[in-house]
Amino acid sequence: MFQGTCGATVIQFRPVFFVIGILLSTLAVVMVPPALADAAVGNPDWIVFATSAGLTLFIGVSLIIGNWAPRFTIDVREAFVLTTLAWLVAAGAGALPIAFSGLHLSFTDAYFEAMSGITTTGSTVIVGLDSAPPGILLWRALLQMLGGIGFIVLGVAVLPFLKVGGMQLFRMEFSDKSEKVLPRVAQIAGGIAAIYVALIALDATLLWIEGMRGFDAVCHAMTTLATGGFSTFDASIGHFHSLSIETTTTVFMLLGGMPFVLYLEFLRGKTRRLLRDSQVRGFLGLYVATVAALVLWQWLGGGESFPQALRETSFQVASIMTTTGFVTVDYQTWGGFAAVVVLYITAVGACTGATAGGIKVYRLEVLYATAKAQIRRIIQPHGLFEPHYAGKPIPEAVASSVMGFFFLFALTFAALSLGLGATGLDFLTSISGVATAMGNVGPGLGAVIGPAGNFASLPDAAKWLLTLGMLLGRLELYTVLVLLWPEFWRG
Amino acid sequence: MFQGTCGATVIQFRPVFFVIGILLSTLAVVMVPPALADAAVGNPDWIVFATSAGLTLFIGVSLIIGNWAPRFTIDVREAFVLTTLAWLVAAGAGALPIAFSGLHLSFTDAYFEAMSGITTTGSTVIVGLDSAPPGILLWRALLQMLGGIGFIVLGVAVLPFLKVGGMQLFRMEFSDKSEKVLPRVAQIAGGIAAIYVALIALDATLLWIEGMRGFDAVCHAMTTLATGGFSTFDASIGHFHSLSIETTTTVFMLLGGMPFVLYLEFLRGKTRRLLRDSQVRGFLGLYVATVAALVLWQWLGGGESFPQALRETSFQVASIMTTTGFVTVDYQTWGGFAAVVVLYITAVGACTGATAGGIKVYRLEVLYATAKAQIRRIIQPHGLFEPHYAGKPIPEAVASSVMGFFFLFALTFAALSLGLGATGLDFLTSISGVATAMGNVGPGLGAVIGPAGNFASLPDAAKWLLTLGMLLGRLELYTVLVLLWPEFWRG
Repeated sequence: MFQGTCGATVIQFRPVFFVIGILLSTLAVVMVPPALADAAVGNPDWIVFATSAGLTLFIGVSLIIGNWAPRFTIDVREAFVLTTLAWLVAAGAGALPIAFSGLHLSFTDAYFEAMSGITTTGSTVIVGLDSAPPGILLWRALLQMLGGIGFIVLGVAVLPFLKVGGMQLFRMEFSDKSEKVLPRVAQIAGGIAAIYVALIALDATLLWIEGMRGFDAVCHAMTTLATGGFSTFDASIGHFHSLSIETTTTVFMLLGGMPFVLYLEFLRGKTRRLLRDSQVRGFLGLYVATVAALVLWQWLGGGESFPQALRETSFQVASIMTTTGFVTVDYQTWGGFAAVVVLYITAVGACTGATAGGIKVYRLEVLYATAKAQIRRIIQPHGLFEPHYAGKPIPEAVASSVMGFFFLFALTFAALSLGLGATGLDFLTSISGVATAMGNVGPGLGAVIGPAGNFASLPDAAKWLLTLGMLLGRLELYTVLVLLWPEFWRG
Repeated sequence: MFQGTCGATVIQFRPVFFVIGILLSTLAVVMVPPALADAAVGNPDWIVFATSAGLTLFIGVSLIIGNWAPRFTIDVREAFVLTTLAWLVAAGAGALPIAFSGLHLSFTDAYFEAMSGITTTGSTVIVGLDSAPPGILLWRALLQMLGGIGFIVLGVAVLPFLKVGGMQLFRMEFSDKSEKVLPRVAQIAGGIAAIYVALIALDATLLWIEGMRGFDAVCHAMTTLATGGFSTFDASIGHFHSLSIETTTTVFMLLGGMPFVLYLEFLRGKTRRLLRDSQVRGFLGLYVATVAALVLWQWLGGGESFPQALRETSFQVASIMTTTGFVTVDYQTWGGFAAVVVLYITAVGACTGATAGGIKVYRLEVLYATAKAQIRRIIQPHGLFEPHYAGKPIPEAVASSVMGFFFLFALTFAALSLGLGATGLDFLTSISGVATAMGNVGPGLGAVIGPAGNFASLPDAAKWLLTLGMLLGRLELYTVLVLLWPEFWRG
């Protein structure tokens, strides 16, 4: 599918624009349900959605026709350009109806909101969701749903071939018979998409039974499986005051944070793989340990009863670790320890091959195995110590790539938080704002962007920096950063 | 000097205890000046110093006699045990006179203060330095002076051989003729110690001319070159309200943060090496850039005049980057941007081969070069891209070792800050407390441990965690962490 080239070739924009055309046309079609939803309640925003759909479809079809060719090859460099451009353009098209809707948002705000949607981050600049028209609420949920499945397919079918941040570890599934790569990738992507939609349908049905209105159930199911976290209420899931809704949402958030390929294998009868997977075990282990620590902390602190602490914590930790960002309580009242925990699990994220963001569990496992091997090498300089992941030795290139990712994550984190500080934000908002954007989580810490807050009041420069952070985090840094290298364009 | 072993050998504690004996005897001798200083002003604490000296000398000489042997070999594992034990024992002996002095500190407080001294951190639990007896003030300065030269020698002569966190990069100086290693190391260490003492004498003279009392000048000169930051006044250097004292101190802090081997070469006529050194350039470049950014920030913000901003910033950035920790103003009033800057330069530190702590500039240079090579490798999968440091290719083992260090730093940082949070500290105190301890800087951020604050009010558990952080940071993590591996003791 992707072939490396040595010569100084020019990047082929025709296939790139062709695929962008398909993307835009798809987005145009997806704008129809929000238009219908607004029309059904007589809200004039249906015209905005219809016009946006028409404009997006026109550009999309033009790109398809203008760049049509009987046969395309997509090279490594084109894949990088396409991936980054796809998210930038999708956010642009996504911002169209938001900018011209009755909410009267600036273009900055609309682009921030759309990027937050398509990257499944979930930070919002909209105040007053409870009284917002259904079209815009549905549109935000649809953006997250599309962004979620787009990212799963990217993580399964594209990033492993681009060798981004150690993702080549997840390449083995397709590499046995190289000629059949494309059909198998398409087949697997199709299977995953079907599971994704089925899980959304199941979640929506359960939420509806548990008392949500049908519309809210569908919107929340989409943003739950996408681990996006957009809600149709300002108070997020906390609005419903329902233990069963919280429990269902916790389970489906956790499902959204684990590798979808394993669900496919589960259905094909390889049921053991799911629970034996190194990432899944690490992720669930970290989840249980974090919940236990926070429950103990709150319970021993005397602030809450054990059942209440367990209810709040198991939901909130799942929401942050899976990078969803739903909120039921302002966990900042839990004290300094909880705030430190939240900062770290915001950056950690969940599994690759899922909709979750962040550094991801497999990278931490690789980093830990590598550091352990290094310590043993220091103790016995003449011994041979190979780091292992999931029972197999980690190739040197993968270990370096993961370690490089970790450093670039820290460097980007530092640069963006310095930028946020320079726009005038306080320490806690600057640090947690970058963490939540790069981790694609949603809420930050502090009075401004914390779980009870909103991103609306930030200066425009801060919103653009956070938009960049969401994009960088979502596309695993390298995908965007390579484009900044002059050599990339020289070939 | 250090030879790796393959067989399952038992660690030889005789040479370890012998060297610890020498260390304790030295510390006992160094307790004499504080005893004299207290006796001179008629303070009864002179008895505490004299008794502590006697006890320390007794244990030291006993260890020397009990473990004497005509010939010793010190193996890699013994070197690790010795290094960690040396800092632990020195802090213990250092705490003796502090615990029994008229200040009436608990053992926790005394050990914290002594570890802060011997690791040249500079965090203090003593309130009321201005009225403290001269003995204890001199003792704190002496601990930092000893800790400083101890660390330079460790960084030049020991850590490169232990291959700790990429330190093998700095091994080449001695490796050409292996038989002459020990005499050459001793010669270089002697030369560096002479330069260290000469710089302290020069700094003390200048400070005295600039208006300090002789006693304060000597104390401050010792803690400046050690980049330690203990002062004889609660208001630190800010007590003197003197531009010339601040300027002199800035210059000598910067000198303390750069590789002392280069000063030796400078005196031997190789004057160009100092300014062509990759670390020195990176360090000074980062210093100038940080000062410029903060001056602009304050000046444009309208808070201060340009000269005032330059005066405060150039001092304060030098103090934090070199991990000294002197204070002239409460830089927390500079706003969120400054707080974020301070957090990062607290972790970065200065150069290796100096008295400074932190991650260190050469590691960031290696990390950046490695990440750059990885990005180029993604762009051109068939190209060969070797990362370079100071014009030479970075060996794979060094790159991995540095990247592993970076991950372990982050992991230890996370673990300790979670621990601090669990003792009940707030977010800012937990995060900045670990940064300042692991970076061996001194002050943290926030109302409690900030530049205007003090560590006295922290709970005991937090003090022990910070003590551990200082030790881990000072000994470059690996030196302590290897001891926690069961295999280390099995051989």
